[in-house]
Amino acid sequence: MSKSATFQINLQNIAYNYNYIKSNVNHCGAVVKCNAYGFGATKVVEHLINNTDCRSFFVNDINEAIEIFNVSKESDSKIYIMGGFFDYEIEEIWSRNIIPVCFNKEQIMLWSEHCKKCNKNKPISIQIETGLNRLGLDINDFFKMKSILDSIGIDFVMHHLACGYEEYSTNNSQLEKINQIQGCKKSLSSSCGILLEEKHHEGLSRIGRFLYGSNEQSKNIPLKSVGKLTAFIISVKNVLKGEYVGYSQGYQAQKDIKIAIVNIGYGDGYAIRKGFAFTNGSYAPIISCSMDYLTLDVTSINLNDDKVELLGENITFEKIANWNSKIKGMEITCNLGSRVKREYININ
Amino acid sequence: MSKSATFQINLQNIAYNYNYIKSNVNHCGAVVKCNAYGFGATKVVEHLINNTDCRSFFVNDINEAIEIFNVSKESDSKIYIMGGFFDYEIEEIWSRNIIPVCFNKEQIMLWSEHCKKCNKNKPISIQIETGLNRLGLDINDFFKMKSILDSIGIDFVMHHLACGYEEYSTNNSQLEKINQIQGCKKSLSSSCGILLEEKHHEGLSRIGRFLYGSNEQSKNIPLKSVGKLTAFIISVKNVLKGEYVGYSQGYQAQKDIKIAIVNIGYGDGYAIRKGFAFTNGSYAPIISCSMDYLTLDVTSINLNDDKVELLGENITFEKIANWNSKIKGMEITCNLGSRVKREYININ
Repeated sequence: MSKSATFQINLQNIAYNYNYIKSNVNHCGAVVKCNAYGFGATKVVEHLINNTDCRSFFVNDINEAIEIFNVSKESDSKIYIMGGFFDYEIEEIWSRNIIPVCFNKEQIMLWSEHCKKCNKNKPISIQIETGLNRLGLDINDFFKMKSILDSIGIDFVMHHLACGYEEYSTNNSQLEKINQIQGCKKSLSSSCGILLEEKHHEGLSRIGRFLYGSNEQSKNIPLKSVGKLTAFIISVKNVLKGEYVGYSQGYQAQKDIKIAIVNIGYGDGYAIRKGFAFTNGSYAPIISCSMDYLTLDVTSINLNDDKVELLGENITFEKIANWNSKIKGMEITCNLGSRVKREYININ
Repeated sequence: MSKSATFQINLQNIAYNYNYIKSNVNHCGAVVKCNAYGFGATKVVEHLINNTDCRSFFVNDINEAIEIFNVSKESDSKIYIMGGFFDYEIEEIWSRNIIPVCFNKEQIMLWSEHCKKCNKNKPISIQIETGLNRLGLDINDFFKMKSILDSIGIDFVMHHLACGYEEYSTNNSQLEKINQIQGCKKSLSSSCGILLEEKHHEGLSRIGRFLYGSNEQSKNIPLKSVGKLTAFIISVKNVLKGEYVGYSQGYQAQKDIKIAIVNIGYGDGYAIRKGFAFTNGSYAPIISCSMDYLTLDVTSINLNDDKVELLGENITFEKIANWNSKIKGMEITCNLGSRVKREYININ
């Protein structure tokens, strides 16, 4: 049996999470950008198409869209590029019936001209700037271009909540702004927004982190864990009181301790310097993290098993986010490197 | 021209850095673990073999070793696995004449038995624990196993400085410990150690970060920049005083500002939330970082060009480390994801 660090992905639990969310909203699609947050876009999309009614997929760029197109073209799926497009990409988008989510006047004009050139209108989606201050068309520009947009066809108008996890007043001000637009289908919410009042998740909800079992907030919803990251203890040693562990005397033992060296590090995308790993039924504090290794304090643990959980049912995304205020749990899965073996399972 | 985020790697500058370091030490090899710190192990090894006298390559596991073996087998190169080995890997290592760096008694015994079985001795290297408290054989165990090791053959004894960047007293205590072993070739130093007194870099030096132009300390050595990471501004907008930018009201404008959205984010491995990007001749503060985008404050910048440097001659590894005390610059290159295009150049 290989003792590489392994990321095990439970596809059935992705479908479970999709179905659970779907039962709570009107309509939803799957966000599969960034290689499905590191869970593997091709596998995730194939599984959702074969096992659920999910037929809307959201990516961020043309290459991701083409990857999804190649596995979904036999279905009746819609693929949305949330990052808009560059002029040189238009033919590749058009020829595959991919839907760009435009966020500026230039993109709308390019698409409109392409429609004229091809003597055919294909609808686009529009992202409206309502308060996140990231990508989004100024709402006044939307109204100025409304007649052009009406002739092309609007698939959805969309916005992105800045504080979806919390009941900030900005949620309502963002909603009021996008509701100035009437008579279009809307996509208002990503994962976190569906826990707010229903008015925030009318239309199509774009489900990302919830699909992958990540819910970094206090509200309890019964999502299933999807990813399990494990690695192996390859060395155990005693460290005497006063001795140091790791580079630049990063950790000093306050008493005699026992440490375990685990074969994963920041070079594998596991750049976690605060928190715990789970092994042999206990939580072991991380005391050092280098490119290839994590070091754990296992003083009080009876080590019968050399396997260590670094993400999963015991080390949840929420826990990692609590231990490291600046790190999003998804950062880990997106960045897991090629030394980490992927393993897909399909069991409940 | 594609406007994907791009990591441009100057192979000639890797060779330059190797030759510069080599002129300052007795003997050195290249650390190419973790896909050559993200610079591309195959390309780096091929270039070093074809353009320098580098013939010792250090990796961390069997898969990395096999990759290097496949591009170096026509040369007289030596490949070292610094992470030792598991029992089930021994035949793959043996058959390719790869040299494991053993760090425990079990590995030495396994190798010794395999030598007997094959009726042939092949030397191994040994890592000694001298104070980093990571992987390393207890020096007393080394002496207990000396006769077995002498019959197998010792390629190098090796240790790893815990505080190589600084003149800590531990450098000398580590050296004193490994110098209890006499009559073996030694490998004492990685990049940083070669800036210490000569006694710390006798034998074979293992050059990693210096090869890739990273020198996160104050001592000035004339390394050339090897990696240049760029991305593109895809949106510019004005934000009024008091408005927020990014998730959870992460940034509030203290005056009317102009922001630029750049198409790279933590999902691409660029998880930098503090510091600057370099664009149009100026340093622009990073004010927000999400999975797919960075947001910069470009209020005072005249934007003629939409290209942004995120790592390179202006945004050095050292600067990133200074802006983010917990982040090693190498963390970025190791973790750059598949959406970032790689581009190799070979110019001085």
